[in-house]
Amino acid sequence: MKIKASIIGASGYTGVELIRLLNAHPNVKLQYLVSENNAGSKVGDIYPHLDTADNYSFSNPDIEAIAKNSDVVFLALPHTKSITAVSKLIEYNCKIIDLSSDFRLKNGANYQKWYQHPAASQSLLDQAVYGIPEINAANIKRATLIANPGCYPTASILGIAPLIKNQLLDIPLNHPLVIDAKSGVSGAGKTPNPHTHFCEVSNNFSAYQAGGIHRHIPEIEQELGILAGKDFTIQFTPHLIPIPRGLMATIYAPVKKNISQTEIIDCYKSFYQHQEFIKINSLPRPDLKTVIGTNNCNISLHLDQRTGYLIIISAIDNLIKGASGQAIQNMNLMFGLPETSGLTQLAIYP
Amino acid sequence: MKIKASIIGASGYTGVELIRLLNAHPNVKLQYLVSENNAGSKVGDIYPHLDTADNYSFSNPDIEAIAKNSDVVFLALPHTKSITAVSKLIEYNCKIIDLSSDFRLKNGANYQKWYQHPAASQSLLDQAVYGIPEINAANIKRATLIANPGCYPTASILGIAPLIKNQLLDIPLNHPLVIDAKSGVSGAGKTPNPHTHFCEVSNNFSAYQAGGIHRHIPEIEQELGILAGKDFTIQFTPHLIPIPRGLMATIYAPVKKNISQTEIIDCYKSFYQHQEFIKINSLPRPDLKTVIGTNNCNISLHLDQRTGYLIIISAIDNLIKGASGQAIQNMNLMFGLPETSGLTQLAIYP
Amino acid sequence: MKIKASIIGASGYTGVELIRLLNAHPNVKLQYLVSENNAGSKVGDIYPHLDTADNYSFSNPDIEAIAKNSDVVFLALPHTKSITAVSKLIEYNCKIIDLSSDFRLKNGANYQKWYQHPAASQSLLDQAVYGIPEINAANIKRATLIANPGCYPTASILGIAPLIKNQLLDIPLNHPLVIDAKSGVSGAGKTPNPHTHFCEVSNNFSAYQAGGIHRHIPEIEQELGILAGKDFTIQFTPHLIPIPRGLMATIYAPVKKNISQTEIIDCYKSFYQHQEFIKINSLPRPDLKTVIGTNNCNISLHLDQRTGYLIIISAIDNLIKGASGQAIQNMNLMFGLPETSGLTQLAIYP
Amino acid sequence: MKIKASIIGASGYTGVELIRLLNAHPNVKLQYLVSENNAGSKVGDIYPHLDTADNYSFSNPDIEAIAKNSDVVFLALPHTKSITAVSKLIEYNCKIIDLSSDFRLKNGANYQKWYQHPAASQSLLDQAVYGIPEINAANIKRATLIANPGCYPTASILGIAPLIKNQLLDIPLNHPLVIDAKSGVSGAGKTPNPHTHFCEVSNNFSAYQAGGIHRHIPEIEQELGILAGKDFTIQFTPHLIPIPRGLMATIYAPVKKNISQTEIIDCYKSFYQHQEFIKINSLPRPDLKTVIGTNNCNISLHLDQRTGYLIIISAIDNLIKGASGQAIQNMNLMFGLPETSGLTQLAIYP
Repeated sequence: MKIKASIIGASGYTGVELIRLLNAHPNVKLQYLVSENNAGSKVGDIYPHLDTADNYSFSNPDIEAIAKNSDVVFLALPHTKSITAVSKLIEYNCKIIDLSSDFRLKNGANYQKWYQHPAASQSLLDQAVYGIPEINAANIKRATLIANPGCYPTASILGIAPLIKNQLLDIPLNHPLVIDAKSGVSGAGKTPNPHTHFCEVSNNFSAYQAGGIHRHIPEIEQELGILAGKDFTIQFTPHLIPIPRGLMATIYAPVKKNISQTEIIDCYKSFYQHQEFIKINSLPRPDLKTVIGTNNCNISLHLDQRTGYLIIISAIDNLIKGASGQAIQNMNLMFGLPETSGLTQLAIYP
Repeated sequence: MKIKASIIGASGYTGVELIRLLNAHPNVKLQYLVSENNAGSKVGDIYPHLDTADNYSFSNPDIEAIAKNSDVVFLALPHTKSITAVSKLIEYNCKIIDLSSDFRLKNGANYQKWYQHPAASQSLLDQAVYGIPEINAANIKRATLIANPGCYPTASILGIAPLIKNQLLDIPLNHPLVIDAKSGVSGAGKTPNPHTHFCEVSNNFSAYQAGGIHRHIPEIEQELGILAGKDFTIQFTPHLIPIPRGLMATIYAPVKKNISQTEIIDCYKSFYQHQEFIKINSLPRPDLKTVIGTNNCNISLHLDQRTGYLIIISAIDNLIKGASGQAIQNMNLMFGLPETSGLTQLAIYP
Repeated sequence: MKIKASIIGASGYTGVELIRLLNAHPNVKLQYLVSENNAGSKVGDIYPHLDTADNYSFSNPDIEAIAKNSDVVFLALPHTKSITAVSKLIEYNCKIIDLSSDFRLKNGANYQKWYQHPAASQSLLDQAVYGIPEINAANIKRATLIANPGCYPTASILGIAPLIKNQLLDIPLNHPLVIDAKSGVSGAGKTPNPHTHFCEVSNNFSAYQAGGIHRHIPEIEQELGILAGKDFTIQFTPHLIPIPRGLMATIYAPVKKNISQTEIIDCYKSFYQHQEFIKINSLPRPDLKTVIGTNNCNISLHLDQRTGYLIIISAIDNLIKGASGQAIQNMNLMFGLPETSGLTQLAIYP
Repeated sequence: MKIKASIIGASGYTGVELIRLLNAHPNVKLQYLVSENNAGSKVGDIYPHLDTADNYSFSNPDIEAIAKNSDVVFLALPHTKSITAVSKLIEYNCKIIDLSSDFRLKNGANYQKWYQHPAASQSLLDQAVYGIPEINAANIKRATLIANPGCYPTASILGIAPLIKNQLLDIPLNHPLVIDAKSGVSGAGKTPNPHTHFCEVSNNFSAYQAGGIHRHIPEIEQELGILAGKDFTIQFTPHLIPIPRGLMATIYAPVKKNISQTEIIDCYKSFYQHQEFIKINSLPRPDLKTVIGTNNCNISLHLDQRTGYLIIISAIDNLIKGASGQAIQNMNLMFGLPETSGLTQLAIYP
């Protein structure tokens, strides 16, 4: 029996990526592909690359029908738009994986502050499980509602967690951990705007929301704080790379004295043993091409003996491990499938 | 009377950029364009975009003839290759502007350690003036030999200097200042290698020499140390952007408490008043397109109230302000010209 | 006395390029920079790369004030929008250079057919001079109203004209001349739309308006027909290159038997002698980088002995020789200046 | 029983693509991956994106061992290098799929002329089957030696074949059919050279081998001549797109009068019915993103009523349908598998 999966918000970049990946998943049958703008159109007419034998159509958001006829519903909506939909879906028997940020922050007031919008009810926030499988698998397996992590948080948390768990960080009191992050343009979504115009982005590179104002900051701090058992502060600056996909976080971690590069690598390998999507290494040129098109997170570790800082280069495909792929990984766990089902593609090179 | 200018190493990216810029300089006459590989060829045959009315040719490196018939000689050679050439040129009456790293480090042992090659004589190292005009103009004006700064050091030093001079930094003891830097591919030079192949670079983004091993580190630390009057340590990670030109340094500076964003901007504006190439601002999206094709350094300042860190985004064109343009700016100072002569081009947009 | 120049439509890509080029023109003073959307804003605030000492502002379209206080007015408006503006401006004493397509087609009915919009009055159409200086300089010099050519027509006409004038074409009766053209994305304008989104254009290449429906077709056919003294039909397919600037037309011309490659090159060189912006050659790899940033048109000629076809590769910067640079070249002619005034920039490489 | 497949020339772009695709093929087991330069190295150490559970190594070219232990051998060598290898392999019982051009031209003298190198023996040339499955499936099924088509020929032949077969072309006597083709950079191979340097290719677009001198011309003419039953001449100009993958041929076909666009589309659909990799349509913007990463050939048809020309836009991924994917499609036919086995990936978008 295949898992019946529906997608609400199926025509944005993460929605389309869910279609592409679920279409090739051996245990899934696509059910509803909701896109109000394109309701009634063949998927293959709007997206010629999805012109498959199955000949799917986009449909309208009939929540009740979707909930009753789906085993799992993916929500690939802009933030603030999932709150109502989840409130309704939760009444039914389907599992819910929300790719927006609406259920990631446990503290409703914190959500209100960063998103300038009322949070979901506290009971729903409590019920939501933060879906980063390498760290939270046990909870994910029994969850009904998954808050699928953001792209920057995924790369950042996976890159830092082993240091926290092994108490190797030695950050000066009242100082933040520096995360310098870079993302491809698909992270900005499909709706055209002046900042995604080809002529503005190509031949360019920019920082944005510098000075600690990006909305992924509270999410990263929350999850690292849970791991640390205390408040955790980061200094986070995102940048835009002139490529469609891929995301790199360069993390500057002051570590305890007298630990060697080898010990650190062993610590990471041990933390992530049995995690097939995590690759630990120390490459001369850690890059994005190695992960684009895959659900992998490549973590390259570089200890600077001069300074005692560990430079962590954490790289993912923002639309796969940073969104739709991780959502499917969560689904696999929720349905008792091998974590890698439908997620074994190798990177296209060159 | 025009300044007679020669270029040794005229067919690499910085050499070609010197030709382009000097060809349009109102006070300069190009004399020798030395390129052993292309000696005898018309410049316009090798580089169709330099097919100008002047119809220049590349020539062989006859140091004596060059020195005797030039007012200034630019050396655009790979590192370690300028040492011998400068030793000879210095015997003559011409001024010398060396774009390599061979005369940047004052301490010969430090050079030997980072470049694995014997340094130039200490007397030549002592004679060389580090050519960053916004900080060192007085010395540049009376110099005979200029060590033209590296691209990463230019963006980094210009971004940090006002903080040091105004004693606004508050770095924890024994911790480095974090500089996360990103450069276009022309910084890797013109000789093809697997890491500059289009198929490897495009659609990609990579870190390299992570862990504090890039050769621009001692140069940045030396110059910031001079400004600070004490040792200065940085944590520096370079990255490769899939664009031909442009360089950004994102600097994470813990600053003294109780200083406001406005005060910081005023401090920078004051430090750089009368410096026409430095633009101080606080842009929502500081980028490279604004500086590519210009000799400008754009410095965007972002104070994070949560953490007390100042994020400094310093952006240049690596081949102009980071190399050939700055070399001409130095020449202008050495010959008593306005600093902006021949360097007033606006950025091409889009 | 400097020429007082105003620009209506100063914030689009061709308008901004006019500002950049005219700002550096030794004989021009910028007067009004009209942009309704940005009226009152400093140009440098909207376009940081135009943050010059002159500190220009955008203004509202007060046609009377503009006409009375300008020697020349450039119209950089979308097609159909110049008709009214020109009708008013023509009442005054200023010269007018229109960069839209509204005055290019001599036949109003033809305009109506291709643009689905009523044409300008026949008297204005008659008065307008098609502004391709290498072919039409005498008329341009005494013109009041210039219809500045389209980008595709510029590259196409310059590439084909010498063959027509020397009666070297041998096209089978009732067959068209094939022009396969490729343009950078700035040709699509600054307003964001799904087809200019970075994620759609990067890593991609597309054809559009295939099957002979692009609006530059009647313009090219009109001008080549005038040169030929009879109707002239082309088969024209435009494509989109994932670069911001640059345009190439690959032209497939059946030529008379028994003419050699050398004779053809001589014929082109003779046709364009004294034309400083036209470069005639036969390069192994005719490309766009050689012309981007310049007002040049590079024409590379390749006779195929097997087939008797001449392959003509005609390359320009679509925003300079294909729009704003050519407009300034026309202005230079109209005001008795050397044609190259303000247009001598070399291409930036790499 | 899985097919034992070996690759000679496994570290170039087509070799690596064969590894990626065959690794995911349900009926194949990879046997020898020959790369002299990398013999003994783990594939995953050279290509981190191929760091799979199977942990393959590169090996030396022991032809006898390979032939005896493989059901099929793929040769992904530069042209002229397959001749000797095939001469040896043919003595054994394995099937051979050669991705070079060494066995594509049936006429040895023709090969000698275009490749400046002695051809393979006529008996081997006679034995080789040109491997374009949509046209030649019956012969492929019983072949021992496949000459896998070139990338430009694949897109060109698939785009033109239905017109020839249905006698719809109406080309003037002694005139060629114009094919204007554009390819991504991976077609130039993995070895770095000045023409594949990122700084030369990015922001650029170039024509090369204009004037009818590209080596794919005789291959296209041979195959179209076979279909036509008479000599067939093309005018072919390749161009380089600044993208790693993808290839488009824009074909200018004069067709018989009184045929409609609908009839033409029907004719193509009929010709390619049951061919799952061929998509026939008439898109407003036929592009490459729709095919990159797939084994598809998208053919978009545009009849120009004004001229009677049919514009055919034929698009493929040059490394898949233009090389390694088509090789696997041939293998599938030779071993009685469904043609689509291992080749069902959808395009990655965006």
